Amino acid sequence: MVNAGAMSGSGNLMDFLDEPFPDVGTYEDFHTIDWLREKSRDTDRHRKITSKSKESIWEFIKSLLDAWSGWVVMLLIGLLAGTLAGVIDLAVDWMTDLKEGVCLSAFWYSHEQCCWTSNETTFEDRDKCPLWQKWSELLVNQSEGASAYILNYLMYILWALLFAFLAVSLVRVFAPYACGSGIPEIKTILSGFIIRGYLGKWTLLIKTVTLVLVVSSGLSLGKEGPLVHVACCCGNFFSSLFSKYSKNEGKRREVLSAAAAAGVSVAFGAPIGGVLFSLEEVSYYFPLKTLWRSFFAALVAAFTLRSINPFGNSRLVLFYVEYHTPWRRKTTKLGKYPVLEVIAVTAITAIIAYPNPYTRRSTSELISELFNDCGALESSQLCDYINDPNMTRPVDDIPDRPAGVGVYTAMWQLALALIFKIVITIFTFGMKIPSGLFIPSMAVGAMAGRMVGIGVEQLAYHHHDWIIFRNWCRPGADCVTPGLYAMVGAAACLGGVTRMTVSLVVIMFELTGGLEYIVPLMAAAVTSKWVADAFGKEGIYEAHIHLNGYPFLDVKDEFTHRTLATDVMRPRRGEPPLSVLTQDSMTVEDVETLIKETDYNGFPVVVSRDSERLIGFAQRRELILAIKNARQRQEGIVSNSIMYFTEEPPELPANSPHPLKLRRVLNLSPFTVTDHTPMETVVDIFRKLGLRQCLVTRSGRLLGIITKKDVLRHMAQMANQDPESIMFN
Amino acid sequence: MVNAGAMSGSGNLMDFLDEPFPDVGTYEDFHTIDWLREKSRDTDRHRKITSKSKESIWEFIKSLLDAWSGWVVMLLIGLLAGTLAGVIDLAVDWMTDLKEGVCLSAFWYSHEQCCWTSNETTFEDRDKCPLWQKWSELLVNQSEGASAYILNYLMYILWALLFAFLAVSLVRVFAPYACGSGIPEIKTILSGFIIRGYLGKWTLLIKTVTLVLVVSSGLSLGKEGPLVHVACCCGNFFSSLFSKYSKNEGKRREVLSAAAAAGVSVAFGAPIGGVLFSLEEVSYYFPLKTLWRSFFAALVAAFTLRSINPFGNSRLVLFYVEYHTPWRRKTTKLGKYPVLEVIAVTAITAIIAYPNPYTRRSTSELISELFNDCGALESSQLCDYINDPNMTRPVDDIPDRPAGVGVYTAMWQLALALIFKIVITIFTFGMKIPSGLFIPSMAVGAMAGRMVGIGVEQLAYHHHDWIIFRNWCRPGADCVTPGLYAMVGAAACLGGVTRMTVSLVVIMFELTGGLEYIVPLMAAAVTSKWVADAFGKEGIYEAHIHLNGYPFLDVKDEFTHRTLATDVMRPRRGEPPLSVLTQDSMTVEDVETLIKETDYNGFPVVVSRDSERLIGFAQRRELILAIKNARQRQEGIVSNSIMYFTEEPPELPANSPHPLKLRRVLNLSPFTVTDHTPMETVVDIFRKLGLRQCLVTRSGRLLGIITKKDVLRHMAQMANQDPESIMFN
Repeated sequence: MVNAGAMSGSGNLMDFLDEPFPDVGTYEDFHTIDWLREKSRDTDRHRKITSKSKESIWEFIKSLLDAWSGWVVMLLIGLLAGTLAGVIDLAVDWMTDLKEGVCLSAFWYSHEQCCWTSNETTFEDRDKCPLWQKWSELLVNQSEGASAYILNYLMYILWALLFAFLAVSLVRVFAPYACGSGIPEIKTILSGFIIRGYLGKWTLLIKTVTLVLVVSSGLSLGKEGPLVHVACCCGNFFSSLFSKYSKNEGKRREVLSAAAAAGVSVAFGAPIGGVLFSLEEVSYYFPLKTLWRSFFAALVAAFTLRSINPFGNSRLVLFYVEYHTPWRRKTTKLGKYPVLEVIAVTAITAIIAYPNPYTRRSTSELISELFNDCGALESSQLCDYINDPNMTRPVDDIPDRPAGVGVYTAMWQLALALIFKIVITIFTFGMKIPSGLFIPSMAVGAMAGRMVGIGVEQLAYHHHDWIIFRNWCRPGADCVTPGLYAMVGAAACLGGVTRMTVSLVVIMFELTGGLEYIVPLMAAAVTSKWVADAFGKEGIYEAHIHLNGYPFLDVKDEFTHRTLATDVMRPRRGEPPLSVLTQDSMTVEDVETLIKETDYNGFPVVVSRDSERLIGFAQRRELILAIKNARQRQEGIVSNSIMYFTEEPPELPANSPHPLKLRRVLNLSPFTVTDHTPMETVVDIFRKLGLRQCLVTRSGRLLGIITKKDVLRHMAQMANQDPESIMFN
Repeated sequence: MVNAGAMSGSGNLMDFLDEPFPDVGTYEDFHTIDWLREKSRDTDRHRKITSKSKESIWEFIKSLLDAWSGWVVMLLIGLLAGTLAGVIDLAVDWMTDLKEGVCLSAFWYSHEQCCWTSNETTFEDRDKCPLWQKWSELLVNQSEGASAYILNYLMYILWALLFAFLAVSLVRVFAPYACGSGIPEIKTILSGFIIRGYLGKWTLLIKTVTLVLVVSSGLSLGKEGPLVHVACCCGNFFSSLFSKYSKNEGKRREVLSAAAAAGVSVAFGAPIGGVLFSLEEVSYYFPLKTLWRSFFAALVAAFTLRSINPFGNSRLVLFYVEYHTPWRRKTTKLGKYPVLEVIAVTAITAIIAYPNPYTRRSTSELISELFNDCGALESSQLCDYINDPNMTRPVDDIPDRPAGVGVYTAMWQLALALIFKIVITIFTFGMKIPSGLFIPSMAVGAMAGRMVGIGVEQLAYHHHDWIIFRNWCRPGADCVTPGLYAMVGAAACLGGVTRMTVSLVVIMFELTGGLEYIVPLMAAAVTSKWVADAFGKEGIYEAHIHLNGYPFLDVKDEFTHRTLATDVMRPRRGEPPLSVLTQDSMTVEDVETLIKETDYNGFPVVVSRDSERLIGFAQRRELILAIKNARQRQEGIVSNSIMYFTEEPPELPANSPHPLKLRRVLNLSPFTVTDHTPMETVVDIFRKLGLRQCLVTRSGRLLGIITKKDVLRHMAQMANQDPESIMFN
């Protein structure tokens, strides 16, 4: 039988310790996992279960349960994520209305529910019912007039400030990781980085609660990015219930990828878009199995949400994105006082937003109105066209009419709202509260798009004879649809910020049902990518990851420089030689000294210092544990015991102390490249195989080591030296 | 300056030959490409252009053109693929009608065009116009009656046979590679295999022509798979116009991936589905850049097709798939006589298909009818419900009515058509003509689905009191929609055959516009995957690749066995040692003998036979070319010249012949793993890095070699030993 256990740490029966020491196989905080090792550990686990399953019925059932646990976890994630999203929707709805008034019959009813249950409401006046009282009516018994307006205005600001204050305090005290959107961090975690607590239960709880608070407070942010974070927290929670996932960081990440898909699925009601978003934007390792499971989780989540949501199909709640300005904000002095900052921004938002109808309402309602076409029964100001029965053009040709006063007013208000939205979003994003930027940036695009659309429409009306309009606008045919312009504008703005493509278009048509607009949407996505790329190749997530200095090896960057492994490896020329272990000549004390003096994650093991022939690699953490363990539990192990990594103990003088066998902590298949390997290839290997480190050899002799951080540092260095080279690819 | 040229074959100025020899870097037919090497060659090329671009304006413009050539190729592919698809559509339309009759005003008009241009046609009787004459009218001047029916029947069969005969002859004589669907081969080619001529101009031409012929002949096949092949031929043609793509097999495959997306885009009118299909099903290496380009190509192709297609939005033309039975057919005797076989199958198809209305019409029309819901004005037999005004149930509750005679007739005909379709599709597929199976398998699913749907509907009508129907079928609400059952059935059948997921669902809703049915469609996809997986994990493409013995390393298979690299590498125990070259002690003659006696693709180069320390790898092909070249053009090279791979020539006795330096054909960074590396990891490396071979070492000594074929053989072997193990993953 072949000896396969070496790599995974299980196995050799000749060893003293048959069971792995505690903590073997876990990683420290802010370290990178070794994908190959995790995978191989999972295979071992799986093999054990398979071979045991033949022993008894009970073991067979256990193996079946193990095989299906992946689907069970997906089901649970889908259910919980869908439920949380539904609860958040309901709570936001109620609390947003609370800023304006309260329901007398039951204070936990939102405006709509309040009037819906009331018998005195007619369909026409469905927004007005005696049970729903504005604050001015309740407090001073006035529903109209300047003082009522001012009182309502003040209450609006007060509630907004209260919600924001509560949110920022909760985040600060209980879960600092709950702030922001979380997508860049999730992307980094999925690529194999460990950030303990980022997906913990506290984060889940606090993020859910504060998300409701900040969205209700009316700040310029979206809830979609945070929802992805919430779903990933659910994924992490459920994977901790199954040893298959809790004990293997690689497998756990498969669950998290699927959870991200479920998060997008509930954020937008777009299950397919969710799977694609996880595949295209977030995930690092996405095997086909994960695709299927993501699909399933997204399906369950969408279904759960649909079952809960009492508002039926009003699911225009788009997705999160961050804006292009976090680095600018990093330097403001306000940033040092997070609570004060939140209060200030909330106050400004509330004060400016209230008077303008396009900023007072929730952003998703705004987007919904902008996307809508002006039907004959539409009462919106944006649809205030002049219908003159004496006109020569047919009346049923609705969109092609001169604009009325309402449209001109709306244009001014939209323009002001656009400027306000752009500015306030820059300041809102990056505060210490949960915040997404997808909705705000879609709103910006949609406002700009709608304005352009109305402009073109009026141009076409007043200049029918222009060549471009002549063929295009035949009488009786729809000629310009401002709603479509808004939709394309939103897609373009979003595409420019995130650089999403396929997932963007799919989310857009899952949101709007606008399958026939696939060509303009795709064209918008491609154009916005081209334009945005002219300013820089990084999307917002990559920019954020970069800004935070996470060790993320992006699959999208191309490395095209002419350097070789030998230029990057350590030790550099002039540096002291590499710290190595020898296979059978170092004492326990030697090794302990080496461990104490260095802080490397592991040490290559060579035959001897002279030959420098590599036989394996030992992890620092496992070495420490093994020595500690042996000293405590194994008799005769003293400081000058010889440590050996070979199968057989070395020949020692008669009265030397008992040697310590450490073959089981030795990785016998470390990854090696030759010193002549182009860095391009090395980068490719790190990326595709998810390595932590790689050893460099020449003619079988060990020369040095390259770690993931060395690779990232080198890539950054080369990019700075020659920024132009990226442009030409 | 570092020496980077080693891997790519360019570079060292000290060498005698500064330019690469002709043919260096190309591969032989039926060989596998080395992805890492291709990538590295492209980087070199790119670096050269970038550095040259600073020399003059002209070079700068050239470099810009080079950078944009990818987009230009995409544009051209999109235009040509869209045009060809449009032309095929038009031609098929005309030739299908030709089987029934001819247009007197212009014989090149299809039935619809003929009557459309005629002035005597009313909208009601739009299928009947004097200018369009059935064969019986034209030949014997009878339009009704038994003899007219028989004559039309005969003409139908005759034309079908003529088309099929022409098609099979063209394929046989001019382009044997034009037969079948092409998708398994394209998948294999994209994974890095070379099949010369498979995407050539002749294949393009003949496949386009014969595709029209076989679809018109009424055989049970789809045109969608072949359209993907046609689009890939376009891609190959255009990439041969740009040296960036024609000279690099890796880059060429990026273009082909995008071309496949364009192919699906025009086959179904589903651009997003096309990109996803290429990503999920077909492609092997799909970087983000390719995603963008595929998106663009698919967009252009869809747009071009839409501009050409005179039938507006009648784009229900689904996608290709193959059926589960080619291996069965492999043994039939008929297979040896391809022409006879085609004639026989065509005759049987035509004879059986004509009398049944559900098999006589084209399959895509059939699917379209099955998907349709019964509106009030629907005249189809499937919608022949009894509308009794005296019934207690409201009349506007259309779908919930008792079935009429027409529905029962339709059910019988559908059942017969279903059986016929299943049987004849099995025989049709695998004939030596272009043939796809997407449409037939969707038709099978849709027929079964519609029948189940009608069954449930009638059950619900007659048993309103059953619990499941009580809540579900409230009066006035749509309760059972047989059209939806057909759609779900089609998706499930297709999903079972191809194991597509996301791309399947996206294609289905791009086809049908049924965004609201996303949940049943997804559920159908997941269920059909589960059921199909119980029978075997391979989709139809993988099965076909397997059947043809292509060296395709599927990313989907998981390898979970306990074997190590040492168990797979050659030489095995007892075999003669590995054929190696030494770095500076073999003569030209020694090497020539070694090359003659073995047929390996390359040889490892070691320091000496004693030390066995690896320094690099030399390709057989390049060794042969280098020696031939040196013998012809370099003076003093004789049979006993020493060949050396080191930087400096070895020290030789005074009167020895001039040595031959071959460092430039040496790959200084061959891929190595240790003998203890689990095969799981080795499989992963081969898959992800696209290797051709990998060397096995222990403590720096060369032990053996593992090639892609060894890996595939080993995987097949292990899967046979323990088929159960796959189930548990």
